Formats: sequence, C-alpha cells, structure tokens
Amino acid sequence: MPAATIILGIDPGTNLLGYGVIEIQGSKIKYIAMGELKLDKYEDHGQKLHAIFTRVGELVDGFGATVVSIEAPFYGKNVQSMLKLGRAQGVAIAAAISRGLKVYEYEPRKIKQSVVGNGNASKEQVAHMLESILGTKLEYTTLDATDGLAAAVCHHFQFNPKEFGTPKGKGSGWKAFLTNNPNRLK
Amino acid sequence: MPAATIILGIDPGTNLLGYGVIEIQGSKIKYIAMGELKLDKYEDHGQKLHAIFTRVGELVDGFGATVVSIEAPFYGKNVQSMLKLGRAQGVAIAAAISRGLKVYEYEPRKIKQSVVGNGNASKEQVAHMLESILGTKLEYTTLDATDGLAAAVCHHFQFNPKEFGTPKGKGSGWKAFLTNNPNRLK
Repeated sequence: MPAATIILGIDPGTNLLGYGVIEIQGSKIKYIAMGELKLDKYEDHGQKLHAIFTRVGELVDGFGATVVSIEAPFYGKNVQSMLKLGRAQGVAIAAAISRGLKVYEYEPRKIKQSVVGNGNASKEQVAHMLESILGTKLEYTTLDATDGLAAAVCHHFQFNPKEFGTPKGKGSGWKAFLTNNPNRLK
Repeated sequence: MPAATIILGIDPGTNLLGYGVIEIQGSKIKYIAMGELKLDKYEDHGQKLHAIFTRVGELVDGFGATVVSIEAPFYGKNVQSMLKLGRAQGVAIAAAISRGLKVYEYEPRKIKQSVVGNGNASKEQVAHMLESILGTKLEYTTLDATDGLAAAVCHHFQFNPKEFGTPKGKGSGWKAFLTNNPNRLK
C-alpha cells in the first residue's frame, strides 16, 4: 500500500485564513480537519505575516501535509488590497516551501468548477457538495474554512477525476496509474 | 564593544531582486556587499517565489544579517502587477522571519528622502550619495542593487540620524544611547 497523500488546502485572506485537510489513500478520500486562523486581531501588518508563516508551518507539521493547495484569486478591487493579498499568499506559499513541499494554486472559479461542477457556485453550495464528496457532516463556523477544504479537494480531483473513465490532463494520477498498470497492485 | 549590526537591504521585484549589505559598529557604517538576483530566467511564477525564498535565506545566512530592511512600494500600475509584487515581498519577508529576524519596510520615497534628502531623487542620485555616505566607490551593474543598499542605509539612519543632535523618533538608536549614557562606554 502506498503512503497516504495529505493535502493541506488554504484560502489565504488578509483577515482570515481558512484551511482544510484531507487524506488520500489510493482512490479513497478522507476528511481530516478544517478551521481558520483569525488575523484581524493583529494590528500590525508585519505581525499578520509572521502569524501566517508560523501557523501555516505548524499546520503542515501538525497534519503531516505532503502537498499544499491554495486558493489564489488573480483579480481584486484595487491595488492596495491586491498587494496585501499577494503578501499573504506569498508568506503562506513560503511556509510550505520552507518545509520542502510543492505548492499548487487554483483560481476560485476553478475550485468551484472542480467541486460543484459550476464555476459560479455559491460558498454554501461548495460546502454542501463537500459534505457529499467526503461523506461526512461538516461542523464549520465560517465559509473560509470550507473554502480551504475545497482547495484541497480540487487539487485531488485534478489528478483523480470524480468520474471514472474520464481522466483529465495527462492521466498521471494514481487512479490512471492503476488503470494503466493493473498488474502493479499485488 | 557591542556586537555589530548587519543590515541586509532588499528591493524585491518580480524580475530582479536587488540587495545590499552594510555593517554598523557603534556609529560607524561600513559597506559590505551588494548585488542582484535575476528572476526572469524562471518561467514559472512558483519557481520564482521558491528562488526568492531560498536565495534571500542564503543572503541572511551568508552575511550573518541581524536585521532586514525592505523597499516596499504601496502603489502600482494595476492589480495584476501588485499581486505579483506582494507575493515577492511576502516571500522575501518570510525568508527573514524563518531566520528569526525582524523586518522593517520603507516606501521608496522615504528611502530617497533618508539617503539623499529628497523624496523625488533619481536612482542615480541615490547611488552617488551612497558612495559619499559609505566612503567607497561602488561597482554596481544595476540600479536595483543600489536600491537594495539604499534600503539598508535608510534603516540605519532611522535609528542613527545623519545630523548629530537631531535624533528622530524616540531617539532609541545607539548614538542616542551613547549620548544619554556616556558612562556606559568603558
């Protein structure tokens, strides 16, 4: 049995950072945890960045994450907010890099498309579909946590499509590998 | 004799990262090094961020930097470029944080004001004034390197004003300390 893949999904905002963790074992996907880091208690922007770096590093270590997937919007209201968002993203990415992990990023629209099948789905629809996919009732307090979880699930589906028989991309996922190499699993 | 302060100044751009290093011993300021990291060779934005994190960490370690000062513009042309700039800034800041260093940031205008005495000074004027302040001919290939060096010098002047007798802020610098505590230096 191959080692499990632990995906840490992150939705890095400047006031709240949502995260979700799933474990992939073969084609099985299992919910591990989700939550959020409150950043509005830090008045100083430097302290916020410090908190993001430290806490994301702790999440990686604590859950033994093997890969990080982040929700990364490419558009925003104004240059000021985008600079702050870029910094928050950069620090979260650096925390993963500092642990030697690869980081994948997905646009919000792509994540909704992947999880719900509709790039314009609401956050509530995403949360509802996550419960269906993961086969568990999710106890969440904010929709930032479910957004983080959705980023993790989206990354999983990138390499392991939901529908059997329609591998996307190069079919490089574990499922595609098993399909192409049935004798390897002994 | 107190331990020297080594200031690493950084001008983090998305295609070129300029840096400069100075050593502060008491009220003496000494030029150590400057240079730039070329980032346009990395096609992938993730690789760029990885390079920034790794190389800034190496600069901190290599020069034994004790504090980091970064040039941080707060305005830009458009949201796309500001997001990228924010990420580059965030990753550079995280590299310093990962080494336990404090990071100070200064707007370009503030740096020019501090070094040249004119917030609208040209990069060439900044480079020329740096040679005068540091008492050495600087061999630089780009004005990004001198911008990094200027960030380091600006941070020094924040706590050790150029003009004697006009301490800025709370006068918490080493020079102010000596003035206020003449007997401490034995």
